[in-house]
Amino acid sequence: MNIGILGVTGYGGSVLYQLMQQHPHVDTIYLYGNPDKPAQKLSEVVDQFYLEDTMITPFDVTTVCQQVDCLFSATSAGVAKELLEPLFKEGFPIIDLSGDFRLTSEASYQKWYNKPHAHLDGSVPVTYGLTEFTTDYTTYIANPGCYATATLLGLAPLAQEKKLDPNFIVVDAKSGVSGAGKSLSTSSHFSFIDENLWPYKLNQHQHIPEIMNQLKKWDEHIPAIQFTTTLVPLHRGLMATMYVKLNQEMTQVQLDHLFEQTYQTTPFVHYLNRIPSLKEVVGTNHCVIGAVLNETTQIVTIVSVIDNLLKGAAGQAIQNFNQMFGFEETLALPVFAQLP
Amino acid sequence: MNIGILGVTGYGGSVLYQLMQQHPHVDTIYLYGNPDKPAQKLSEVVDQFYLEDTMITPFDVTTVCQQVDCLFSATSAGVAKELLEPLFKEGFPIIDLSGDFRLTSEASYQKWYNKPHAHLDGSVPVTYGLTEFTTDYTTYIANPGCYATATLLGLAPLAQEKKLDPNFIVVDAKSGVSGAGKSLSTSSHFSFIDENLWPYKLNQHQHIPEIMNQLKKWDEHIPAIQFTTTLVPLHRGLMATMYVKLNQEMTQVQLDHLFEQTYQTTPFVHYLNRIPSLKEVVGTNHCVIGAVLNETTQIVTIVSVIDNLLKGAAGQAIQNFNQMFGFEETLALPVFAQLP
Amino acid sequence: MNIGILGVTGYGGSVLYQLMQQHPHVDTIYLYGNPDKPAQKLSEVVDQFYLEDTMITPFDVTTVCQQVDCLFSATSAGVAKELLEPLFKEGFPIIDLSGDFRLTSEASYQKWYNKPHAHLDGSVPVTYGLTEFTTDYTTYIANPGCYATATLLGLAPLAQEKKLDPNFIVVDAKSGVSGAGKSLSTSSHFSFIDENLWPYKLNQHQHIPEIMNQLKKWDEHIPAIQFTTTLVPLHRGLMATMYVKLNQEMTQVQLDHLFEQTYQTTPFVHYLNRIPSLKEVVGTNHCVIGAVLNETTQIVTIVSVIDNLLKGAAGQAIQNFNQMFGFEETLALPVFAQLP
Amino acid sequence: MNIGILGVTGYGGSVLYQLMQQHPHVDTIYLYGNPDKPAQKLSEVVDQFYLEDTMITPFDVTTVCQQVDCLFSATSAGVAKELLEPLFKEGFPIIDLSGDFRLTSEASYQKWYNKPHAHLDGSVPVTYGLTEFTTDYTTYIANPGCYATATLLGLAPLAQEKKLDPNFIVVDAKSGVSGAGKSLSTSSHFSFIDENLWPYKLNQHQHIPEIMNQLKKWDEHIPAIQFTTTLVPLHRGLMATMYVKLNQEMTQVQLDHLFEQTYQTTPFVHYLNRIPSLKEVVGTNHCVIGAVLNETTQIVTIVSVIDNLLKGAAGQAIQNFNQMFGFEETLALPVFAQLP
Repeated sequence: MNIGILGVTGYGGSVLYQLMQQHPHVDTIYLYGNPDKPAQKLSEVVDQFYLEDTMITPFDVTTVCQQVDCLFSATSAGVAKELLEPLFKEGFPIIDLSGDFRLTSEASYQKWYNKPHAHLDGSVPVTYGLTEFTTDYTTYIANPGCYATATLLGLAPLAQEKKLDPNFIVVDAKSGVSGAGKSLSTSSHFSFIDENLWPYKLNQHQHIPEIMNQLKKWDEHIPAIQFTTTLVPLHRGLMATMYVKLNQEMTQVQLDHLFEQTYQTTPFVHYLNRIPSLKEVVGTNHCVIGAVLNETTQIVTIVSVIDNLLKGAAGQAIQNFNQMFGFEETLALPVFAQLP
Repeated sequence: MNIGILGVTGYGGSVLYQLMQQHPHVDTIYLYGNPDKPAQKLSEVVDQFYLEDTMITPFDVTTVCQQVDCLFSATSAGVAKELLEPLFKEGFPIIDLSGDFRLTSEASYQKWYNKPHAHLDGSVPVTYGLTEFTTDYTTYIANPGCYATATLLGLAPLAQEKKLDPNFIVVDAKSGVSGAGKSLSTSSHFSFIDENLWPYKLNQHQHIPEIMNQLKKWDEHIPAIQFTTTLVPLHRGLMATMYVKLNQEMTQVQLDHLFEQTYQTTPFVHYLNRIPSLKEVVGTNHCVIGAVLNETTQIVTIVSVIDNLLKGAAGQAIQNFNQMFGFEETLALPVFAQLP
Repeated sequence: MNIGILGVTGYGGSVLYQLMQQHPHVDTIYLYGNPDKPAQKLSEVVDQFYLEDTMITPFDVTTVCQQVDCLFSATSAGVAKELLEPLFKEGFPIIDLSGDFRLTSEASYQKWYNKPHAHLDGSVPVTYGLTEFTTDYTTYIANPGCYATATLLGLAPLAQEKKLDPNFIVVDAKSGVSGAGKSLSTSSHFSFIDENLWPYKLNQHQHIPEIMNQLKKWDEHIPAIQFTTTLVPLHRGLMATMYVKLNQEMTQVQLDHLFEQTYQTTPFVHYLNRIPSLKEVVGTNHCVIGAVLNETTQIVTIVSVIDNLLKGAAGQAIQNFNQMFGFEETLALPVFAQLP
Repeated sequence: MNIGILGVTGYGGSVLYQLMQQHPHVDTIYLYGNPDKPAQKLSEVVDQFYLEDTMITPFDVTTVCQQVDCLFSATSAGVAKELLEPLFKEGFPIIDLSGDFRLTSEASYQKWYNKPHAHLDGSVPVTYGLTEFTTDYTTYIANPGCYATATLLGLAPLAQEKKLDPNFIVVDAKSGVSGAGKSLSTSSHFSFIDENLWPYKLNQHQHIPEIMNQLKKWDEHIPAIQFTTTLVPLHRGLMATMYVKLNQEMTQVQLDHLFEQTYQTTPFVHYLNRIPSLKEVVGTNHCVIGAVLNETTQIVTIVSVIDNLLKGAAGQAIQNFNQMFGFEETLALPVFAQLP
């Protein structure tokens, strides 16, 4: 198989490119960039690729169709819906890391992304690729957001069993700076974020609606969640700390049992009988989860950690690729945490 | 006046010593250390004091009584109750930065600090010195813990007015590493905490009972809080993110008004009409608070930030000192945030 | 006295404003900004000034002359020479933190700053304000660059005594990110510099010529220095590690003696009999220096550390102000290192 | 083949274990620990191995000989020479990551490591495994130190061609904290090293003699080097900045040509026509080098960067393993830099 990557110069695209070079079923990887810019060498745009002489060529639908069997799109929001529509409508296999087709409602997209959505006529169904809970694959995979992945995997065991008090779901998520991408902004300036903690987009993060969509599929009684994102001074990794009340009493043993059962056979999601720290997953495609029942308050604290660029982006995209094409789920995906 | 500092080599003690050198009503500062160790030069123990030739002399009750008019004790838990009991019983003015006398119940101290408490016969009353809400000063001030300070100042406006749903108080607190002091441990090793997030002491942090004591004084209906502490990769500063439900509807305007009123005249606590970031207070004795009502979930998110070594330790101790002796509240206290 | 600050929103200007508020001889501080922009509230531009209601008004020569007795200019290179020329020519007291008038040769400015210099007719002499070695003050002070300050103070004792092998002076300087100011660039992006070391402007840093100017004044035989700057992942502080050969044998004792003599009475420069670490000076106006003779190679390693925004910018500017107007040298200058 | 790892709980050993699990010619990996301690689960000692159920068993010479074909030893200095002597003398294949047998002189070991060396009777020759320059392999490989690797690879092109002024070799090396291992010390405390720069072991680092040994093999005229190590606030990576004078004039083009030729075919050492930043190699086994001639001073600045735990420890050990047993040099070694 040949694959293409649109947007290789961003963090997600670069990581994807590194990993896919090791995929045993992939022959050639074509890199596509801005359709209006001339071709350029990858090594001249991203220093880390100093050994590569691959070219980034302008994105063009016809070329893509001729060269590759599947396209990964790793652009910022708004680009995919513009460039990919023709491919999308023809049922060309696409795995889209952006948020462009995660929301099915135009109004919702407009509200959370602050721009108009591409026209969705419903003729081509989109798969929300939360890999552990996705079985039917269409040709268009909307790869989940990083916050959504950590949160949904943490809430799934209790939500699916409808054991949550629907009015008591609080998510306090912390993310490293790479989550915001490469673009320059005051909030990604080293001198701003170093030694700082910055709560941002309170109740307004664009991953909230995709979390709600999925939660409602698991338990229609959940009306809303409380969701906070705080930027922390590290480059890579994301922790979602969740506080939920149960709608019926459970013991810690029952809680452990439920989580263990849900993630008994998932190669990339693991429940621990302790609370994880972030670095146990950085550098891997794993999501690691711990949960503790507070017997005084009857609140369960769930901690879910992922590498935002792997399980939260490029890694999950490859996992979707593997599932979509019937390959072994774990191919080309890193499993060893960076030490130290 | 002359003052003494017991435990000057720890972070709290060192910061206290720096600040008190600029206090206009303090003549001489005596430094006391381990009663069983010989005197030593401060500059040989703490590099930053390379310009000082002050000595640390062994702690001794008689000497203290002769030399100073007030003693600051900045030791780790368990030391104060051993060394200070004679002074304590004689009503000698003490401001204690440790947790030793913050809890009035022996059982509670035993449970949360894992060691037996000194015998408390109740003959000498202890003042819990949460400065903004303390008016009657005894001779023994238990200076609040850093987590307790940020949390209580954030919850006070709603708790005092009994506007909180008593069963929905979640505190997700994040702290820099200096909060754990200078002692060596796996969790303070640079290679562990750098690029990491580490939730610790879930439901077990020793500041929980002092928070509950104070909250119950404001609203006896509050049975418990949910309290999580996460260590973040920075050296100084503490953020408490609180999620509370109101027991009656309020608008954002009413919420702002309530917080503004509570902190209208407090020189070191400020309510902003926006969410603060941590660095706005690091280097100062300020506590800055922001609060946002989520109209969908009816949950209020309160963010309260302090410098854990200033408002959370040495700064508040000096503020207590100023109030206790009738000095102007702001003397010797830093107000300019470190830039950047 | 009243003073003015042009460029208060940059790091240097902001720190200057904080410190000067505590200067006992300063009544009012006026803030000036872009002459073409309307007045705005400082608190709306710099979050840390949330408590201030001071206005930044458009810079205007006439207003400045009426309002203040001395102007601090803390703009980026190229701005001072444009805006300040009229004041400069009338002998109005100016302390300029930019590099605009540090170089007396137009060709040199053009070469190192990549822009044309203002016309210098020599009618108004400029003082290069390396405070410890400046005695004659004109009305225009060119405040030295941060790299230049740390390097020159470290080399002065040996250079002044002409004890250096003029062909063996290597400076390996490391700086935190605040040195590059607030402007957004790839190299100040958190995800770039976090966990990174970035050597930049090799042999091309614009502080090289001002270092050479001063060195030549001390020892005309020095033809050039080798000077490297590396950006390190911290926000504040600068270390210059210097490797020099002596032109005659010295013992470590003689070396210590020479440095101690040079800095015997300087309140802000201190020679230690050990190598300092950076944090011993961060938060202070101090420069701390250590030097070690390697008996095998006969090379002396000199380590000089400063806070780049204090002794390397705003602090030295205030020290110049104090000396220029005959105030006590140490007024309004911080001396306590941030702990930890 | 089966291999064994002694000292898997340290950083070097853990990384080695992760990588060797992917080595196509290795069947089983046995983990050995303290001979006097009972067996324990790896997952209970190192959190990151939460998915493994491998045991660490007590080190025992007989067991090692029966179970494995090659032993990696990743202990701290002094342990290898005690435990491995019997294996060493029998010519059992050992790759030793410690410094114990890097120095051939007992006096030198005693001087730089501050402990007596094991008796070396010379009957079993030791190979100093600087992989790019090692061809004859004995059964005992002393894997080079991290500082030595970066420095020697940077100096090799000029030293081998005897183009260096032997009295002008200055190395200013910067290392992340993982280089000091996992043991707790004041200098690895987060609050000490965060936002700090700490020059340590000036002229006294134990990697100096192994660098000198190798340099002298290349150019016997080099009497000594000037070598400084500075700890910087990051966890992983090492940069050696070298300042050398040439003993004959060269142009930048000639310089580039010489470096390019030396590293034309080395899969893990690469010369760039620009100065690299550290993160271009972190996460890989690469050493990347840049060199710039200063035409004014005639000094060449060479910057050499490695990941101290890979090319500086476990990675080079595997490269030695591959060469020693005739496998392809690049097996099991990571080549993609961590992004970002």
